[in-house]
Amino acid sequence: MTTVGPTARRRAALRALLPAAEVDALLVTDLVNIRYLTGFTGSNAALLVHADGDAASRFCTDGRYRTQAAAEVPDLETVVDRASALALAAQVHAWGVRRLGFESDAVTVDAHDALVAAADGVALHRAPGFVQRLRAVKDAGEVAALRRACAVGDAAFADLLASGGLRAGRTEREVAHDLEERMRGHGASGPAFETILAAGAHSAVPHHRPTDSVLRRGDLVKLDFGALVEGYHSDMTRTVVLGAAAGWQQELHALVAEAQAAGRAALAPGAETRAVDAAARDVVERAGRGEEFVHGLGHGVGLQIHEAPALGRTATDVLAAGMVVTVEPGVYLAGRGGVRIEDTLVVHVDGPEPLTHTARELLEV
Amino acid sequence: MTTVGPTARRRAALRALLPAAEVDALLVTDLVNIRYLTGFTGSNAALLVHADGDAASRFCTDGRYRTQAAAEVPDLETVVDRASALALAAQVHAWGVRRLGFESDAVTVDAHDALVAAADGVALHRAPGFVQRLRAVKDAGEVAALRRACAVGDAAFADLLASGGLRAGRTEREVAHDLEERMRGHGASGPAFETILAAGAHSAVPHHRPTDSVLRRGDLVKLDFGALVEGYHSDMTRTVVLGAAAGWQQELHALVAEAQAAGRAALAPGAETRAVDAAARDVVERAGRGEEFVHGLGHGVGLQIHEAPALGRTATDVLAAGMVVTVEPGVYLAGRGGVRIEDTLVVHVDGPEPLTHTARELLEV
Repeated sequence: MTTVGPTARRRAALRALLPAAEVDALLVTDLVNIRYLTGFTGSNAALLVHADGDAASRFCTDGRYRTQAAAEVPDLETVVDRASALALAAQVHAWGVRRLGFESDAVTVDAHDALVAAADGVALHRAPGFVQRLRAVKDAGEVAALRRACAVGDAAFADLLASGGLRAGRTEREVAHDLEERMRGHGASGPAFETILAAGAHSAVPHHRPTDSVLRRGDLVKLDFGALVEGYHSDMTRTVVLGAAAGWQQELHALVAEAQAAGRAALAPGAETRAVDAAARDVVERAGRGEEFVHGLGHGVGLQIHEAPALGRTATDVLAAGMVVTVEPGVYLAGRGGVRIEDTLVVHVDGPEPLTHTARELLEV
Repeated sequence: MTTVGPTARRRAALRALLPAAEVDALLVTDLVNIRYLTGFTGSNAALLVHADGDAASRFCTDGRYRTQAAAEVPDLETVVDRASALALAAQVHAWGVRRLGFESDAVTVDAHDALVAAADGVALHRAPGFVQRLRAVKDAGEVAALRRACAVGDAAFADLLASGGLRAGRTEREVAHDLEERMRGHGASGPAFETILAAGAHSAVPHHRPTDSVLRRGDLVKLDFGALVEGYHSDMTRTVVLGAAAGWQQELHALVAEAQAAGRAALAPGAETRAVDAAARDVVERAGRGEEFVHGLGHGVGLQIHEAPALGRTATDVLAAGMVVTVEPGVYLAGRGGVRIEDTLVVHVDGPEPLTHTARELLEV
C-alpha cells in the first residue's frame, strides 16, 4: 500500500466537489492552485482533475520543465506541450469528459475562446473558486510552513532591534533592506511582499513604499513585512516610536491595539468574517476614528500573501478551523502619522493561535 | 502651453487606435498597461481612455492610494472606489460611451460577467493587445531606463568577477544572492526576476533555481539575471567555466555564440521574429543539436521581463525600430551541462544596439 501524500489528498478533496459543480473534470490553470494540487513550482502548467481519479487525470507542462516535473509531480501522468491548457482541452473528449469545468475567475475571455475551440464539442462550465476554498483551510504541513515563515519574521525583527538597525539617521530604504536581509539570513527565500517601511508622516500612508527619506527621533515607524518560506508567506506589522512616544502617539497606538485585540478575540469557527471586521471596526468607530480606518481587517495567507477568506465590511466568508488569517486594523492621521498592528493567526475551536509572536506593546526604540 | 508628458503621449497614441477597434472608449484593467499609460504604480486601478480625449477619460483607484494617485496621475480626473473597473463601467453610459472596449486578454470570464452587468446596456467589445503593441516600441525615456537597468547588470557581474565571488566552494544560492546584492548596490530596486544560477549538470536545466549545491572546478556555470530599475527590467545570460574549459565545453560555447551572433545579426525593422529565431536555430540544427535548443530565441523586455514581441518558431510578430528584445539561444546536454548566451538589444534601422555590454567570449574564471 502506498502512502497518500498531501497533494494526492488535496486532489481527492477537490474531486469530491466536482459533482456539486456538475462537471466530470476540472481544468486547473491557475499556477498557485496547480502548485497546491501537485507541488509543481514552474511557470507554465495545466492540470486536469478527472472525477474518475488520479489515474484518469493529467498534468501538462513544457519542455523546459521536463526534469522538474518528474521530480515534483511523480504521481501524475505528464503531457509535455507548451500550450498546456489547450493541449489538455484537446484530449478531454477522448478521456471521457462530457462536462468540463474551468476556473472562470482565472481564465481570460480570450483564453476561454481558445479552450472552447480546442475542446471540440465538450461543454465548458464555469467553476470558480473551488481550489481557493480548499486552500483556505490549511493542512498540518501548511500550518508548519506558515509557522516557520512567521518565526523567520519574528527573528529578523528581533535582530533588527537588537543590532540597533532601527534608528534615526537611516533611510526607510536602508532599514527595509536590512530587515529583508535578516529574514534571508534566517532562512527565507525572499520577502513575502515588498516591505512597507514608513516613518513619520509616511506612516499615515497605508501602503507606503520605502524611500530615501531619513528616520527622525519622534517618528512613528510602521514596518509591515513577511518572509517567504517553502512557498508560504508570513505577514506582520508593528508600529514603533523612535524615542519617547508623544501623548497622541500613545493614544493612537492604544486605540489600534484595542481594536486588534477585539478582532483577534472574534476569530472562531463559524464566525462571519464581516462580523470579525465589525468587532475591530466598532472600537475605532466608537473613538470617532472610523473614517481613518480605510481598509479591511485582514485576509487569508498561505501560498499567496492575499487569499481567501477576506475579512472586511462587505466580506461574505465564514471562518472554519484551520484557516490562517491576518488581523490588521490601522488608523491613519494624514500628514501626522498612522499605526497598524498585524498578526497572522490560525483559527481553532479553542481560540485563535498566533503564529507571529513579537510583542504588541508600543515600543519606544 | 503645457508640456505633453510621455504618459499623455501614450494615451494619445492609444486613442488613435480606438476607431480600428470600433469602440469609443477602452477600459484598461491590466496594471502594467495602466502604469505605462498613467505612471501609477499601485496594486488596484482601472483606466477609461475615452476617444474624446483626456478630459473625458477617468482614472480610478481605492482609498489607500489617494495620495499616491494625486502624485503619480496628476493629469487625469480620479475616481476613488475599491471596485475600480466596475465603478468606471457603471459610469460609461453617462459619459457618452456606446461601444466599450475591454482587454479580453486580461479580463477573466467572471470579471467580464460583472462588467457586463455594471455597464448597464453599453455593449462590451473584445480589444486585446492594443496597449501591449504600443509598449513593444520603446520611447526615449524607456530606452534610457532599460539602458540604466542593463548597465547595473553589467556592473554587478563585473564586480562579482573582480571580487572573486564566482568561485568553487560557494553554493549556487550564495552566488545568486551576492549578484543580486551587487545589483542593488548599483541602484537596482531589486532583481528583475529570480536569478538563475546553475552549476555543473544543473546548467543543462534551462530554468534552474539556485540550490545549496556547491560550485566545483571544471563546472559550467550559467548566470541568467537582471536588474529592476525604475520599473524596467534588464536581462542577460553568461555561461563561464570554473578553471580551464574542457574541449566539449569550448565547442558547446562556440556553437551557442555563433547562433547568438546570427540571431543578433538578423535583428532589423521589418524582420519577422520567426525568421530571427530561425537564423539562430539553423546554426544549432546544422550542428545536429536542434533538439537540445528547447526554447524560443528571445522576447521583448520593458515594464515586464517577458512582453511583446516574441521571438520563436511559431511567433508571428514583425520587428520595428525601437523594440527592445533579448537574443538568448541555449544548448543543453542533459546530465552534463548547458550554455546560454543572452543580450538585450534595441532594434534600429542601422543595426541592433546592445544594451548589455559584458564580453561574450567564454570566460575561464
